[in-house]
Amino acid sequence: MLTIVKIGGNVIDDPRLLHRFLVDWAAVTGPKLLVHGGGKIASAIGQRLGIEPKMVDGRRITDAETLEVVTMVYGGLVNKNIVALLQALGNNAIGLTGADANIIKAEKRPVKTIDYGFVGDVKGPESINAKALDAILQAGFSPVVAPLTHDCNGSLLNTNADTVASVLAVAMAEKYKVQLLYCFEKKGVLRDAADENSVVEKLTPESYSLMKDSGQVYAGMLPKLDNAFATLQSGVSIVKIGQSEDVLAMAEGKPAGTTIALEA
Amino acid sequence: MLTIVKIGGNVIDDPRLLHRFLVDWAAVTGPKLLVHGGGKIASAIGQRLGIEPKMVDGRRITDAETLEVVTMVYGGLVNKNIVALLQALGNNAIGLTGADANIIKAEKRPVKTIDYGFVGDVKGPESINAKALDAILQAGFSPVVAPLTHDCNGSLLNTNADTVASVLAVAMAEKYKVQLLYCFEKKGVLRDAADENSVVEKLTPESYSLMKDSGQVYAGMLPKLDNAFATLQSGVSIVKIGQSEDVLAMAEGKPAGTTIALEA
Repeated sequence: MLTIVKIGGNVIDDPRLLHRFLVDWAAVTGPKLLVHGGGKIASAIGQRLGIEPKMVDGRRITDAETLEVVTMVYGGLVNKNIVALLQALGNNAIGLTGADANIIKAEKRPVKTIDYGFVGDVKGPESINAKALDAILQAGFSPVVAPLTHDCNGSLLNTNADTVASVLAVAMAEKYKVQLLYCFEKKGVLRDAADENSVVEKLTPESYSLMKDSGQVYAGMLPKLDNAFATLQSGVSIVKIGQSEDVLAMAEGKPAGTTIALEA
Repeated sequence: MLTIVKIGGNVIDDPRLLHRFLVDWAAVTGPKLLVHGGGKIASAIGQRLGIEPKMVDGRRITDAETLEVVTMVYGGLVNKNIVALLQALGNNAIGLTGADANIIKAEKRPVKTIDYGFVGDVKGPESINAKALDAILQAGFSPVVAPLTHDCNGSLLNTNADTVASVLAVAMAEKYKVQLLYCFEKKGVLRDAADENSVVEKLTPESYSLMKDSGQVYAGMLPKLDNAFATLQSGVSIVKIGQSEDVLAMAEGKPAGTTIALEA
């Protein structure tokens, strides 16, 4: 079983939470691959450099200067610090962007109403160099992947980390049994947004449909969950959503987080 | 033959020269490994962030803030842009710091008269994870190595790129026949510093000694050349010094640069 985990800003921006996560991640057995987002550090560094973050509909507009910042922060500062910490914890981590070994090809998003700048759309699992990733895993390394992709013409592109994780999972599912774990700020999908402990153990297309109708899941959760179901339909064996503190339990199949399932 | 090349600021800071070098580097046949320095970009970014570069005896003092800057710039901006450009040129590059696959262990320099901060000293070839590098080369990847090392306790350290190149060369010489090419701003060691074309074809310990006595080589060249001779004595087969424009000729054994040799 290949375990792929995605962590986001809530973990990366909190040194205590990040350290706890990395200790648990180092303890996960078997081949594994970590995808990280960028967090607020990119905006903070950008602002110190005099570059104001430009967001449209919750997405960062990546102009040339911003691309430099995310390359520095995601590919350098965040990625290499995670790698060094994991190595100190005994995990044989190797930090990669989509350009390294050309593991993730993308296309610069075409300009329609909004020019997102240097943002990369990954077409699908065929954009992943699964052979290279397999060679890296076979050599005993644990990839730590920054959400930067390659236009195959020498330019890096900024890509959503959730997307990177799911496309990697689908591509690797051709050879491996894959479990994909999304860590976010909640313990899982909640029956009641006000009750942290109302975690839905298992979400099927039927229960998801009911929860959408009742308004129990909404906004930012919808693309995450749509994406999770699509990933299962594309051959990934297990998909779970939960908090980073539960990563070890989720990876080991203990009750934790919400399991996304095609059948009840 | 494993070819190891080190490029410095004069190439990295000049997009035209960098592109020309990368085209040639992509054309070098056989297993290869590129070590790059940082150039002036780290100082420029640091200054924009309000961090003044602190130099003592030509060495950067690496406080915690400066370590963040060099991690971003060397490990992110410079390294990943080189990797993306090389991938576009058909070279299967993979960007690494000393923390990735723990390839370069170092010790934080002890404080004597000067506190260099987060600067790493590499003990010797035993600090190199040659097995990991060999696995990466065997998998068909060309490492691009940033001058950052790992204290094995979760912290990156800033290390001189010339040192990184020479220690890597010596460590890899256990398994490979290695040629080590240092690219700098001159065509080679010059008989006459004022005459760009007075390149010494071959420098032996005897001719080096004479040139030191006559003052033809001095200052910054001395540690470079001392280091080059030591590398040969430690098992590296070929060491040359020349300009980046001649990297292909040097790699292919055509007349270019200065060959450092133990015998005439």
